[in-house]
Formats: sequence, C-alpha cells, structure tokens
Amino acid sequence: MSDKVKLLKKQNIHELERTAEEIRLEIITATQKNGGHLASSLGAVELITAINRLIRPGVDRLVFDVGHQAYAHKLFTGRSLNELRREGGVSGFTTMSEGDDFGAGHAGTAISAALGFARAKKLKGETGWSICVVGDSSLTNGESYEALNDCGASGLPVMIILNDNEMSISQNVGAMAKYLSRVCRREPYLRFKRGVKQVLGVSEKLYSAAHKLKTSVKHIISGGSGVFESMGFNYVGPIDGHDMRALVETLRFCMTLDRPVLLHVATKKGMGYAPAEKDPTYYHGVSAPDDMMPSGHAACAKAVGDILVSLAAADASVCAITAAMPKNTGLEEFSRLFGDRLFDVGIAEEHALTMACAMAAGGLKPFAAIYSTFLQRSYDQMIVDMALQKLPVKLLIDKAGFSGADGATHNGLFDIAYMNQMPGVTLLSPRDIEQLRLCVLFAYSFDAPIAIRYARTLPEKIGENLGGVLSWQKMREGRDGVILAVGSMVETALEAAELLSQNGREVSVYDCRCVKPLDAKVLLSIKDMPILTMEEGMEPGGFGQSVSSFLAQNSDNRIRIKVLNAGDGFYSHSSRARQLECAHLTAKDAFDAFIQM
Amino acid sequence: MSDKVKLLKKQNIHELERTAEEIRLEIITATQKNGGHLASSLGAVELITAINRLIRPGVDRLVFDVGHQAYAHKLFTGRSLNELRREGGVSGFTTMSEGDDFGAGHAGTAISAALGFARAKKLKGETGWSICVVGDSSLTNGESYEALNDCGASGLPVMIILNDNEMSISQNVGAMAKYLSRVCRREPYLRFKRGVKQVLGVSEKLYSAAHKLKTSVKHIISGGSGVFESMGFNYVGPIDGHDMRALVETLRFCMTLDRPVLLHVATKKGMGYAPAEKDPTYYHGVSAPDDMMPSGHAACAKAVGDILVSLAAADASVCAITAAMPKNTGLEEFSRLFGDRLFDVGIAEEHALTMACAMAAGGLKPFAAIYSTFLQRSYDQMIVDMALQKLPVKLLIDKAGFSGADGATHNGLFDIAYMNQMPGVTLLSPRDIEQLRLCVLFAYSFDAPIAIRYARTLPEKIGENLGGVLSWQKMREGRDGVILAVGSMVETALEAAELLSQNGREVSVYDCRCVKPLDAKVLLSIKDMPILTMEEGMEPGGFGQSVSSFLAQNSDNRIRIKVLNAGDGFYSHSSRARQLECAHLTAKDAFDAFIQM
Repeated sequence: MSDKVKLLKKQNIHELERTAEEIRLEIITATQKNGGHLASSLGAVELITAINRLIRPGVDRLVFDVGHQAYAHKLFTGRSLNELRREGGVSGFTTMSEGDDFGAGHAGTAISAALGFARAKKLKGETGWSICVVGDSSLTNGESYEALNDCGASGLPVMIILNDNEMSISQNVGAMAKYLSRVCRREPYLRFKRGVKQVLGVSEKLYSAAHKLKTSVKHIISGGSGVFESMGFNYVGPIDGHDMRALVETLRFCMTLDRPVLLHVATKKGMGYAPAEKDPTYYHGVSAPDDMMPSGHAACAKAVGDILVSLAAADASVCAITAAMPKNTGLEEFSRLFGDRLFDVGIAEEHALTMACAMAAGGLKPFAAIYSTFLQRSYDQMIVDMALQKLPVKLLIDKAGFSGADGATHNGLFDIAYMNQMPGVTLLSPRDIEQLRLCVLFAYSFDAPIAIRYARTLPEKIGENLGGVLSWQKMREGRDGVILAVGSMVETALEAAELLSQNGREVSVYDCRCVKPLDAKVLLSIKDMPILTMEEGMEPGGFGQSVSSFLAQNSDNRIRIKVLNAGDGFYSHSSRARQLECAHLTAKDAFDAFIQM
Repeated sequence: MSDKVKLLKKQNIHELERTAEEIRLEIITATQKNGGHLASSLGAVELITAINRLIRPGVDRLVFDVGHQAYAHKLFTGRSLNELRREGGVSGFTTMSEGDDFGAGHAGTAISAALGFARAKKLKGETGWSICVVGDSSLTNGESYEALNDCGASGLPVMIILNDNEMSISQNVGAMAKYLSRVCRREPYLRFKRGVKQVLGVSEKLYSAAHKLKTSVKHIISGGSGVFESMGFNYVGPIDGHDMRALVETLRFCMTLDRPVLLHVATKKGMGYAPAEKDPTYYHGVSAPDDMMPSGHAACAKAVGDILVSLAAADASVCAITAAMPKNTGLEEFSRLFGDRLFDVGIAEEHALTMACAMAAGGLKPFAAIYSTFLQRSYDQMIVDMALQKLPVKLLIDKAGFSGADGATHNGLFDIAYMNQMPGVTLLSPRDIEQLRLCVLFAYSFDAPIAIRYARTLPEKIGENLGGVLSWQKMREGRDGVILAVGSMVETALEAAELLSQNGREVSVYDCRCVKPLDAKVLLSIKDMPILTMEEGMEPGGFGQSVSSFLAQNSDNRIRIKVLNAGDGFYSHSSRARQLECAHLTAKDAFDAFIQM
C-alpha cells in the first residue's frame, strides 16, 4: 500500500475532498507539461479518491476501462506524473508493468477482466471485490456487453462503476446513451442520496445482510432501472460523482452486497478546470507543448476529410463511417456538410465493418475511417464480410505506425500484416499527402475492397507522383543496391540513399505505395543486388517478409536482403522519433544495414 | 421472384401450412443425405414461409444471422438441397454468390448488415424493409449488441426477428437468455394473439398510421418488455413461431410500422421431426453418412478434453473456457466433473479472451478452446490483453485447417498467420494425437502465452515423439532435399517422401510442430538443398513465408524453396480431401513440386 493510500484510509470526508483537489492540481500541472487525457482524468478524481479510500489493496481488484481516466489512481499508488507519457515515465493508460491489476488501452475489456478476477478469486477461495471503472462510451462496445451478459448471470461480487459523463471522446451515440440519459433525468441523484442515507443510518451489520433483502433495498436504491436489473445486476445510482460523501457512503454500501452491482456515477468531464469543462472534446487529449507530438498534428486526417468532402459533394452515394472518432479522423467538416451521410457507430469497430459491407452491397460507396490499432477489432469481419464477399468497402486506416506518447496499446504496427492476410484486398500506403489524396481518389472508383494506411502526418510532397498507385515508383536511381520503402519510410530511405551516396554507394529507392499486391515486375527486375526493405510495421506477415519470401521463391540467384521494420515486440510510450530509433528505422540505421550487406 | 415464391404469394393460411410441411420434408430428406444443420432449419420453417409470403423481393432485404437456419429460404428462392454442402451444391450457410442478400457464417453480423442496407435505402431514396432473422444465441455476441444499439437509435425501418428457441448450439448462457425466458413466461403468446387480432381486425389503413399511435399500440403488443423498448425498438411478441396465422398477421402488422421493430418469435428446434425435437443438440449439425465428414469426427477435441480432465483432477487452478461449444470442443466430461471450472461465455470470443487473461493474472491456468475460424474475433484481445501483458493463457485452437462441408466461412486457415503476429506467443501444431497430448501437457506448465492448433482429426500416432515440442523432429533422413511440414501435413509429407524415394530421390522430412518460434538451428543446418514447406493454412504471414523469409535473410547460398499452402483465396464447401486437392496440398502435389525444383 502506498503512503498516499495509507493516509487516505484515515481521512474523513472533508480531508478526502482536499486530497482530491490536490490530486486535481497535480493532474493539471502534469498534462500541461506532458499532454494527455486531461478532461476524463479530471472527471474521475473524486471517484478514484473514494475508491482508493475503500478498497483493500491485495484483496480487491481494480480495473479501468481504456485506462485514460486513471491518472488519479497512478498518483495514489505512488507513481509520479512528472514524466507522464514520456520515455521512462508512466504510461497514459493503465499497465500491469506499472503495478496496475490489468492494463488497458482499447475500450470494452474492463468488465471481462473484472469477471475473470472474480472467477479466479472464487476458485482459489479468496474473498474481495473485483471492481471496474467503465466510461459510458465503453458501453457502446460489444465486448462490454458480452461481459455484462456473462457477469450479470454469474452472481459474483463484481462491481461495475459506470463513470457516466454523457460524452465519449466526442459524444455518445446510440440507444444505450439515450437510455442512460433518460435514467439520469428520471431519478435525480438528490432523491437517491436521501434514500441511501436512510439506509446507511443503521448499523453496518444490517447491510452486510442487505442482499437478502434485495427486493426492498432495490426499490430504494434504484427505481425502475430496467436494463441493468434485467441483466442480473443490483443497479445503484445515479449518484453525483463529485460529491465525496455520496461516493464514499454508496461505495461502502455496495461493498456490503455479495453479487453483481452496477453503480451509476454521473461525472463531468474536465471537472474543476474551467477551460476543460467548457470544451472537453478539445481537452480530451492534450498535446504537450514540445516535441512529443509531431507538428502538423493530424495533417493526414485533414487531407482525407477534405477530399471526402469533395467526393461527397459530387456523388450522393459517398458516405463515411467512424467509430467514435469523427473529429480525430478528420470528418468534422464532412459531418457538418453531409451529416446524414456520416455514421458514428460508437466504439463498435466490428459493427462498423459489417455495416460498411452491407452499405456497399446496397449501392453506397462507404469509407470507414478507423485507427490502425482499433481496426484490429474488425479482423474477422474484414475476412468474412468484406474479403470473402468482395464488397468494395474503402478502409481509411488512420494513425498507422508508431503512436509516440500513447504507447504500446496504440501503436499502429500490425496493419500491414493483418491486411496482407485479406484475400483479394488491395493495401496502399502513401509516402506523402499528395499521394494520400491520389489514393483516396483511386479507392473511390475502385470496385473491390481496398485499404489505405497512413501515419498521423506525412510530408506534403516528396517529388512528383508518377505512374498508377498500384505500381511502385522509382524515386532515385543507383546501381549498387535497392531500397524498397513503404509509406512514411520513403522519406527516410531517400535520406539513407543520400548518406550512402556521400559514401560512394549509389542505390535505387522505390516508393512501394502498393503493399498488396506486390509489384512483381519491379521485384523480378532486381538482379544480383543487395536489397533493403523499410516499413513502419511488424515483421511477421509484413512487407519485408512478403518481399523476401517472394524473392526466395522466385529468384535464380543468391539473394541479399535485409528487412527493416518494427520486429516482433512492443514499444512503450515515448516520442515517435525515439520509437523509430528503438526499432532501427532511421536513415542512419538503413545506411548501416546497407553497408554491412 | 422464384416460382415457389410466386405461388406462395397466392396461398391462404392453410395452404401455407401445407407448403411449410412440404419444405420440412425436403429439409429432412436433404440433411439425411448430405448432413447439415437440421434442428435449427426445421425450427424456422414456418417463420421463413411467412417471411417469403410477405416480403417483396427486390424491395425488402433479408439477412440471416449465421445462416445455418436458412435451408427453407434456399428452397423458396429456387435452390435445390440435393447437393447441400457438397461441391457444386448449395452452401450450408447463406452466401451472396448464391443470391442471398448477405452471407453469413459467424454469429452476430445480421443486425449490422440489415442496418447497413436500411441506411443505403434511405440515402438512395428507396423504400422497403431491411429484415434480419437472428437466433437468441447470436444475442450473446457483442457485435449484435453494437448493432442493436446503433439500430435502435437510427429510427429506420429495420425489423429484427428474434428466432428464440431458448437454445444456442448447446444451451444459452448469460443474463440475456434468462431475460428472454422471463419475458416468454410473463406474456403467454395466446394473450398476445388476442391483442393482435383485435388490432388487425380494423382496416390496414389505420395500421399504416399505427406508428403515430405507437404508445398505445405498444401497450397492446408488448407489455413491459423493457430491454428492447429501452433501446428504441417497437417490441412485438413473443408469438408462436409455428402458428402460421400468427406469423403472417404479425409480420403484416409489423410491416405497417416505419421504425425499428423487434419481433420476438418462439420456435422449437427440430420442430416436426421427433428425433430432432428430442435431442436438438445432437441434431444441431448432422453428418452425412458417407465420406463428407472424416471418420473419427472430433478425435482431437476428445483427446484434449480427456487430458484437461486429468489435469483438472490434479490441479484445482486448471479451468476451461468455451464460447458456446462445450460439446464440440470436447469439454463435456470436463463440464460434468468440474462444472464450476468450465466457463461457457456464449458466442463471445472477445470477452472469452480478455477474461482468460484476467484469470491467468488471478493465478488460474485457463485453457480457452475455440475454433480456429471463430478465434479470428479475438485478434485484438490476443495482441493487447494476452501478448502485450505476457499472460500465460493457453489457447486450444480447434478445427484448424479445411472445414470440409462447412466451407469458406468455417475454414481454419488463418490461424498460423494471425498467431505468428502475436509477439512472444508460442504456436504449436502437433502432427498426431499423441503429440497433441504432449503439447497440452507442455502448455499446462508453460509460463507464457501459448497456442496449440489442431485439425478436427489427426492420426493417433506417426512414429515416436522425440525431443521437446519446441524443437523440430526429423522424421525421415535424405540427402536430396528437405520437406518442412506442419501438423496435418507431416503425414502427407512422409507419403510424398516415400513417392520420391520410389523415384530415386531421398528427402528428409521434419515435423515442424513448433511454428513459432521457428527452429533456427534446423533451418541454418540446411545447406544447398531444395526445400519444400507444407502447411494447411494461408500463405500470407504463414509458415512457408516465415521460413522462406528467414532463409532469404540468413542464407549465404542460393535458396531453392517452394511453399505449399492454401494460397491467398477462399475455399468453398466440399470434402476436406477435395479442398486439399484444390489447394495442391496432397502427397502427389508435394512430389510434383519437388521434382520441378
């Protein structure tokens, strides 16, 4: 138990409130310096304070969904935010390697994890609660529901704390969000608070037996909260997530039960920091003032959004799909101008893919813009619904490559490998923004499934874009070897070629903008030369592996090839430049690799 | 419109009932000959008859979840079941290439697809309903929920027909199943039927305006069906799914509405065929009497189940997880003996994986037994929850390789490629059942994530199992070349070696039972020899590609290598033997490939 938590255990409500204010200040200071998820972490300060006041470390388990709201918990458990999201500092999400009970990063896993812990406890004869803190936006995710369904039926002491700020990254979508907002209006938390106080007025002993009286307690605690009760939960709430007394008393009450509980807590994103309260979407993810975030923040998303706007203006069948990221994927203007053709499905990537497939089958031209790391959720739907049925969905795989400060759960490094596995699906990876535009235009008129992957930012233009996007473009000519570079690595490869040239080695550089299918003509034309491949992606199943395998099967001569890529491991939060260094993906690395061949 | 549907449009209730009986007989006859999903298809005969009576082909869209209940629809739309699930005959699931509006195979996609069609209709200014038929078991799947959530809020004319037989492949699990069963008990369909008749007694015109009176109609149609109403649906039902009049009248009523409708239909699996009514789990999937299904049906699942039983008897921390397949993954005996350690989460592979990870973190030894094709759903959880956190989950990847009569959506051909992408995860693929047992024992005591993939059946024993499972075993010695074979292909490789020997070529054969990591020692020992790889899996990211890429990067000599695998396409239903022929994965193919090197 950290010193901070030890102290907490002795504090009364007023002291807890002061502690929460101190924690809030620390969070504001740290995110001003390092960037991060300010608004959601501020909204959860009192809640996390109250949880840490009551849970027993080593006895109860605590899991956060996504984990970006857990800065207060990091502070309570003795972690410093001074180097938040920086190399060697704490992660912006929860991580087991920092001591969290379970890590997170992608939405929807916390209830599953809490139930797993509860089942382990039961089989091992251990006592204690398994608690998870889940944002309302995570309830739009299917895995949350799969777990709710199983959890409600399990009867085990799992407490799901629904941290309901009525806002996901932009705003909540769907029926569940409307339902929650109805519940909140129907039962003002003040009335509830009176009810709880009546109950909590008598001795604790009575309440530990309270679950036997659940029918009557239920009526005090939650009048008519059909959905969760139907699923087998004791529904408690909604309560004010910034009222320390309500939080502590209600949590204490919930912990006297011995079955699945859903505690509904209403919070305000950005609470206590006026600018973030006013514009929580802007303050959802704050960039650090220095080099942690590349300049031209989301230049690629903007370019994609702009070109989709012009396509949509010209063709009424163009539509766009986002999974809770309309702003970050560059679709705000599209949403403003063509709101009826922008479908924000919530954090529901599986549904997004299948729906896009049916839209294509129904005669639309659907562009689905999803981050590389989150599209991992749609792997099966891409195979069964899209590739097998050859439906001309256009995937816009945003934030491909290293994620910088967001770290291991957010790196977009698997996309080349997983897209390579989709039979008959074309994968493009443009080298610059001009080419990105050409790729989107090409995808628009392409009559088969196609995906375009792009980094957060790319140079505006690297030389002229010549030839069709399905072929590789020779960017530089040389007789001593070849560099085959993908997307963001084209610029790096050209730098490496310049370095090599300064050392008397002239190499050709190809922009391999079409990752699948490979440009067999170019590959077969390379005779008896050292070859270097470069990609910002994993090795297994990636570009280098498919190129080297192709050459091994098709070459009559000895092959000399080195593949530069992100290898087969994970990369923690840091700057993107440092991550590229760690993966040996700099111009200097390419130079060295070539010299050694 | 098929002749059968044209006829249907003129039939009255009694004629429709007779037609349904004829269809039922055709289905029984066809599955007796060809095998297939008998029980669920029989349960949906009246429902599908009524739907085809009312929908307007070309105007309304119809999607089936999973598609295994749609045999009656195949017959109505002019397809013959004579060659059901056989090469060239119709698929056992819905498929766009046969003319279905949308294909299926994996649970949970139908609502997404129906909503996609509805959105396409709206944007294109087309009228008509988007209807999907969804089994109650599919409601345990997260994608269904993601789509329900979006659909309920959309306000579009999407009709979800919940085909509720209170039984998934074995039996439904979870809170939603309990809820549905409570609803059924609470509102006997007879009372409902009276209500509907009163409403339907007046003119159609009134009902086309009925949605304006939805509040009052709602009370007649569905008293207190909280969950779906909360999500934004008009809830109608439950009605008797074998009462033709109720079906036709209710469907006709629902089609007068103009918003999301959930029609709850209670059906009986196996209806009308006494043996299937009595034991619907047995008759869920029926095997054909001939060679369509390999003998020793699920020999591998049985072996795995048996060894898990002995491990569980010895170690109280051993537990098993299944996603609605306790029987087919061999866990029935485990369930009988250690029911408290068998967790059937429903068709919820995402939740299964995250929960297994937390169980491992909580000190258990979780074995998750999931079909290769369905584990595709857990791709992201395997990366983020399992591999990144290095949690020692043991994955039992069942039904790896070709699926035979189940066809394209059920082939387990992607697992080598997707598991190769999991950093730090070991992948084993045993050649025989004895080795499968050794692999499970090895996984039991292995302290990192590990996966074992195995076909439906494998030979009991091919030679002695020597060496550790992390190394490759030389099965045959020869100086003219090497065959590197994975799992089911070891036997085939040995046959090919025998053929080659008869033609004067002696080749070594390795059992490459550890697919990841590769046995670098063996690979580096192969000097200047032709190499053939063999695996029952896709080429991109597969074993052959990782071997050839490794050699291309590490060999000083010219490499001669051919990779035999399932290539980069899809394979329809057929016998497994024919699928292996189509993929050029027979001993004769290996012989030919070698001779040509």
